[in-house]
Amino acid sequence: MTDLPSPGAPGRRTITGFSNPLVKFLRSLRDKKHRKREKRFLAEGLRLLTDARESGMLPEMLVMAIGRDPHPLLDELEAAVLSSGGEVVEMDVEILAKVTGKDNPQAVAGVFAEFDTRLAQLDRSAAPIWLVAQALRDPGNLGTMLRTGDAVGAGGLILIDDCADPFSVEAVRASMGAIFTQKLAIARWDEFQSWLRTGPGQLVAASLRDPTDYRQAAYAAPCFLMVGNESQGLPAAYEEACDLRVTIPMLGRADSLNAAVAGAVLAYEALAHLRPN
Amino acid sequence: MTDLPSPGAPGRRTITGFSNPLVKFLRSLRDKKHRKREKRFLAEGLRLLTDARESGMLPEMLVMAIGRDPHPLLDELEAAVLSSGGEVVEMDVEILAKVTGKDNPQAVAGVFAEFDTRLAQLDRSAAPIWLVAQALRDPGNLGTMLRTGDAVGAGGLILIDDCADPFSVEAVRASMGAIFTQKLAIARWDEFQSWLRTGPGQLVAASLRDPTDYRQAAYAAPCFLMVGNESQGLPAAYEEACDLRVTIPMLGRADSLNAAVAGAVLAYEALAHLRPN
Repeated sequence: MTDLPSPGAPGRRTITGFSNPLVKFLRSLRDKKHRKREKRFLAEGLRLLTDARESGMLPEMLVMAIGRDPHPLLDELEAAVLSSGGEVVEMDVEILAKVTGKDNPQAVAGVFAEFDTRLAQLDRSAAPIWLVAQALRDPGNLGTMLRTGDAVGAGGLILIDDCADPFSVEAVRASMGAIFTQKLAIARWDEFQSWLRTGPGQLVAASLRDPTDYRQAAYAAPCFLMVGNESQGLPAAYEEACDLRVTIPMLGRADSLNAAVAGAVLAYEALAHLRPN
Repeated sequence: MTDLPSPGAPGRRTITGFSNPLVKFLRSLRDKKHRKREKRFLAEGLRLLTDARESGMLPEMLVMAIGRDPHPLLDELEAAVLSSGGEVVEMDVEILAKVTGKDNPQAVAGVFAEFDTRLAQLDRSAAPIWLVAQALRDPGNLGTMLRTGDAVGAGGLILIDDCADPFSVEAVRASMGAIFTQKLAIARWDEFQSWLRTGPGQLVAASLRDPTDYRQAAYAAPCFLMVGNESQGLPAAYEEACDLRVTIPMLGRADSLNAAVAGAVLAYEALAHLRPN
C-alpha cells in the first residue's frame, strides 16, 4: 500500500470523496496486477469476514458504509480490527458501491495481506490429504476446491503452473471462507516435484490411462490429489510422474468431469480410506 | 420464431446487415424471457454441436461466419442440418461477433428447439440414478450437475422450484454436451412429490440432521438424489419428505459443500452401491 496516506495506521477514517486515493487503491484490488504489486486482497461480506476472524485472520483494513444498520458480528469485527492495530474506514454508500461493485448499503469488505504461498511453508505431515491443481483457470473452480479441501480436512491447495489467482474476489467468494483455513502454495511443476520428493508423499491423479478403480486404490497419507486444466486435463508427463493413477467411472458420453467435481470425488474417496475410524 | 422471414425454411441464407431480424432474434436468445417465448435456445461451439449431433440432436439452424476456415466436423454438421430440413446461415464475422459475444471468426452456434421438460416424459426405470436440484441459482452449477449426471449414467436432472434456466448459454456450456444426453424436467415441489409417489423411487438428501453416513446408506434404484439451494440448502420440510437422509463428513469449519460438488459426491457413492458388478 505504498502510495497511501498513513498506511496501516490504526484507527478510524471517514471518506466522503470519490477522489480519495484509498478508493482508487481499494478498486485496484479487483485487478490481479495491482493485487500482486500491493500484496493485498479483498474479501467481501460479513459472513466471509466472520469466517476469517474465527480462523484467526483479521483484515488490515475494514471498509463499510456510513449509516449502515448495526450488526453485532460487525461490531465484534470492528473492535477486533481496531485492537489488532488495523484500520476501520467508513465511506458514503455511493463510494462503497464503487469499491464493491454492489449497490448494497450493508456491504462490508476487508483488505488482507496475501499469505505466504511458498511450498516451503507447508507442513505435509499436518494433514492426510492435499489437493493439487494444474493450470486451473476458473476462479470458481479454484475457490470450490479450497472449500472441498476444508470439508475433507485437507491441509491445503497447491497450484501448479498458470492457475487462476486464488486471491481474486471470485475465488475468495467461492471458497466460502476456506481461503482462510486452507494452506495455499503456488509453484511450477519442477519446483513442486522437487519439493514433493524431499519427503513422504503419494502423488495421485485421475486418469483414463490406468485401470485402477478409484474405489479400490491404495491411498497413502500424505496423499496429494492432482487435477488438471479444465479443457486439457493433465499433461501426460505429469500423469506419468504420479505414484498412483486411478479411474473414475465415466458411464456417459463425456470423458471427463468438471475439475472441481473430479477433485471432490477423489478427495472424499481418499478420505474414506485414510480417515481413522 | 414468429417474426422471422421464412422460419425453418430449409436451405442456406447469407446475412450481411446488422439490421436483419434474424440477428436480433439470435441475440434475443441470450435472454431468458425471449428463450421462453421462442421455445428455442443457443448452443455455441463446434465441440458442443458435435456432441449434440452424436446424441442425435441437430440444430434447426446453424450459424457461422462467412470466410471461416474449413473443418471436417463442421462440414458434416452442415450437411446433417441441411438434410434434416434445417437451415444454415452465414454472416459477416462482425455480425457473428454480435450474436455470440465473441470476437472469434471460427465461432459457430446452433439454434435448438427446447426439450419437453414435463415430469410425465421421464421414464424412471430407464436409469438407477436421477439428480434433483432445488432452487439451484447458478447456471454453472446446473450445467455441472448435468455433466455429472451423464458421467454416472443418471437418467436426468429434475429442477424443483426456481432454478437457473438450464437453456441459458452458461448452463449449456457448463454441461459440456450433457444437456443433449440427460433428460430434464422442471416442476414445483408439490408436482414432483405427487409424480414421485406414483411409482418406485427413493428420495435421498444430504442432511446434517440425520447421522446415517453416506458411505453406509442403503441406496435403492431408482434413486433420486436431491441437493438444495446454494445459500439456503434444502427446506426442512423437503428433507423430512425424503426416504433417506445421509451425512457427508464435514471435517473443517464450513458446514456445506458447493451444491454441484455435493451432488457429485452423493451420485458417485450411489453409483458404487447400485452399479451391477
